[in-house]
Amino acid sequence: MTQASDGARAYSRANVEKFLGELFEMLRIPSLSGDPAHAGDVRKMAEWLAAHMQTLGLDKVAVMETAGHPVVYGEWMGAGPDRPTVLVYGHYDVVPATMEDGWISDPFEPVVRDGKIYARGATDDKGQLFIHVKALEAWLKSSGAAPVNVKFLIEGEEEVSSPNLTPFIEQHLDLLKADVCVISDTSMPSIDAPSITHSLRGMTYIEIEVEGPKDDLHSGLWGGAAHNPALALVEMLGKLYNPDNTIAVPGFYDDVVPLTAAERAMIAKTDLSEEQYKAVTGVPALWGDQRFTIRERLSARPTLDINGLWSGWSGPGPKTIIPQKAGAKLSSRLVANQDPHKIFELLKGYLESIAPPTVKLDVRLLTTGRAALIPFDIPEMQAAARAYERGWGHAPVFTRGGGSIPVVADIASLLKIPVVMMGYGLDSDGLHSPNEHFSIEMFARGIETAIVYWEELAQLA
Amino acid sequence: MTQASDGARAYSRANVEKFLGELFEMLRIPSLSGDPAHAGDVRKMAEWLAAHMQTLGLDKVAVMETAGHPVVYGEWMGAGPDRPTVLVYGHYDVVPATMEDGWISDPFEPVVRDGKIYARGATDDKGQLFIHVKALEAWLKSSGAAPVNVKFLIEGEEEVSSPNLTPFIEQHLDLLKADVCVISDTSMPSIDAPSITHSLRGMTYIEIEVEGPKDDLHSGLWGGAAHNPALALVEMLGKLYNPDNTIAVPGFYDDVVPLTAAERAMIAKTDLSEEQYKAVTGVPALWGDQRFTIRERLSARPTLDINGLWSGWSGPGPKTIIPQKAGAKLSSRLVANQDPHKIFELLKGYLESIAPPTVKLDVRLLTTGRAALIPFDIPEMQAAARAYERGWGHAPVFTRGGGSIPVVADIASLLKIPVVMMGYGLDSDGLHSPNEHFSIEMFARGIETAIVYWEELAQLA
Repeated sequence: MTQASDGARAYSRANVEKFLGELFEMLRIPSLSGDPAHAGDVRKMAEWLAAHMQTLGLDKVAVMETAGHPVVYGEWMGAGPDRPTVLVYGHYDVVPATMEDGWISDPFEPVVRDGKIYARGATDDKGQLFIHVKALEAWLKSSGAAPVNVKFLIEGEEEVSSPNLTPFIEQHLDLLKADVCVISDTSMPSIDAPSITHSLRGMTYIEIEVEGPKDDLHSGLWGGAAHNPALALVEMLGKLYNPDNTIAVPGFYDDVVPLTAAERAMIAKTDLSEEQYKAVTGVPALWGDQRFTIRERLSARPTLDINGLWSGWSGPGPKTIIPQKAGAKLSSRLVANQDPHKIFELLKGYLESIAPPTVKLDVRLLTTGRAALIPFDIPEMQAAARAYERGWGHAPVFTRGGGSIPVVADIASLLKIPVVMMGYGLDSDGLHSPNEHFSIEMFARGIETAIVYWEELAQLA
Repeated sequence: MTQASDGARAYSRANVEKFLGELFEMLRIPSLSGDPAHAGDVRKMAEWLAAHMQTLGLDKVAVMETAGHPVVYGEWMGAGPDRPTVLVYGHYDVVPATMEDGWISDPFEPVVRDGKIYARGATDDKGQLFIHVKALEAWLKSSGAAPVNVKFLIEGEEEVSSPNLTPFIEQHLDLLKADVCVISDTSMPSIDAPSITHSLRGMTYIEIEVEGPKDDLHSGLWGGAAHNPALALVEMLGKLYNPDNTIAVPGFYDDVVPLTAAERAMIAKTDLSEEQYKAVTGVPALWGDQRFTIRERLSARPTLDINGLWSGWSGPGPKTIIPQKAGAKLSSRLVANQDPHKIFELLKGYLESIAPPTVKLDVRLLTTGRAALIPFDIPEMQAAARAYERGWGHAPVFTRGGGSIPVVADIASLLKIPVVMMGYGLDSDGLHSPNEHFSIEMFARGIETAIVYWEELAQLA
């Protein structure tokens, strides 16, 4: 059966090489949002995207200022007021990457190995956001129009938990008015297991510092009567967990909505075996709260991780000091209905309660994000399921994501629209890790699925 | 009463400015023995010293190779075979220092503030070793001869625990033959409290690494089922001490020689108050094994310190990873009769016994050094006490040092000579810390005391 989307799909298949060339230009820009030294690169990336949207013929294309890194906006409203409007959200910023972390090739010089694009941001989220830009190009170049109106909201601070996006949305409610929001910033377990994410974890990210002496001390002259700050820190952090691997912070689990039997049955459809988890991650053995399955622990239960740890001398050879201070970055992945600010207060209070009087403790909040939970029986979700059936050949499952896209909960509540998370990454893509990559086949299938999703949405109207 | 040393003392007083200019040249060379990137600077420092000894007219001056950094040797044997021979030991290498550590001025561009020389190595040990070079110069320039023969053995690996010095001494027993060894690499509590160190702590320095996944993991996708290596590390290191601040490693204290009442009484002569310790170090409160006084804890009891700690992301902003690995540097200051290698085995065994099966643990030995204990009723020690009386105006006390000079035990046993530690530093000099400094008055008094010590030694002959 011939469909309107056939031309657009054919165009996208014929132009994969061109699309990749453009994506590589994006991947070469080290748009690290968390490092002030890269602020210029972040802006360069925003300007590249805006210029690219301009060449495709979008309207109102602009690099819009925020209190932090800018938002890139552009729209194509040619489908007319009777057709639905899709708001595409994505982010053009990335987390840090250096060769010393273990990259095989320069993280900011993309290369293709074995059908995969290796570069920081390949899957998270430059490659995935670009899918929608290319879907619109395919519709416009093949038939001169798309079946829906499309607005792009591409931010540059997702990797630092989007501190300025909520105010931006609040200030631009009319501009961003839409019927549904689509986000591609999640992943599926394997290429043959398409999934739609309907839940995400939130986050509370803190930094703590323990200070002892006013300077590093010679450990021979002064050792034995000063509480080593690194020792005080590990003694405190060694009390984060109970022996059963539950988090020891009092009140931490109080607001967690318990899982129903039906939810657990749904989560079981995508459970991982221990062998699968070990094969992908390389850990020697699994760990965690044994009352929950692996997938439950990865998506429907909160965590508390140490993301960074530093004190004293970490260079080559010995240095015999009592360090002046020791620090750590800790973050908690939260689930509904945990409040990120309440969790910060609980963490801070607990750390202060176990800090010894021999050191000074400072606990700072870095970022927060709320968890999101979207119903999956609404028409926009079901249309997405049909799009996957057409793009992939079989129906997707609805899954919970373990990661955090802080803006999902905010878009849903501020714009009062459903958010459909159609992620085209693979769980094994290594996002935030050395050698992050993105499958070219997933990129190509993603574009075709986005193309047909718009057709499905238009038919709802 | 006129003494032979009067001329030498007058020369040294008249030439302090010249001596300082020469010392500054030494301090400008960043001779970091622990960092392979500075190997060239270490050699440059050795060559500077050798050239300087040559200009003073010493014989057999040489930069002598070892398996690591070279030893600088030089001798003046003009006093003749009937006079005693003094072996001066010192080290020309230093520990790392960067402005980021909190230095007020460039650590390798010495400046004088308030009568003190600020630079890395000012007191430890360039300034102190130079005292003996200048004492010899003073004798030779003022009277053409010194009352004793002098040999210099200046090494470049003290700060990495002298891995190659013991073999060097074993291979050059004839060259190094002497009647007494003098070392200035220790300190006294205040300028009016001269002291002779008769005991030093030994050391076992290890590095440990905990590995979990094969790469950093995205904490959202994978968090909840992987034992975070940084968490595993802090959980292990949090078990290094018992609640009473004694070291929890089984067998750790087994070989410690208990302190007698007489020894405790002697140590009490130089005890510190809590207020003094807090004032110098800046710690908010004291810590340690309450069964022992502060000075006992600092010199006559073993320690176990965390010297460095690292894992994951320590740069600006958040990074949401489960780090691939976490590491720490730990060192133990040992007392007689603890064996450094036995202590390594105990530490390793304990860490392995508490390591969870969810991570891989690697424990490596970096360096070791034996503790030293020298009797203080021998003639060479009593002569040193008289030298201090002449240089300072009152008698020194015999103290235990908390630091480690690994070679002291080896020189004593291999060359079968007493080692006299005449340290001219102050406990507050900040060695191994930012803004290390050395008092010009201590430098000048040190040279005069070294001058008269040789006269006292000659009279023993």
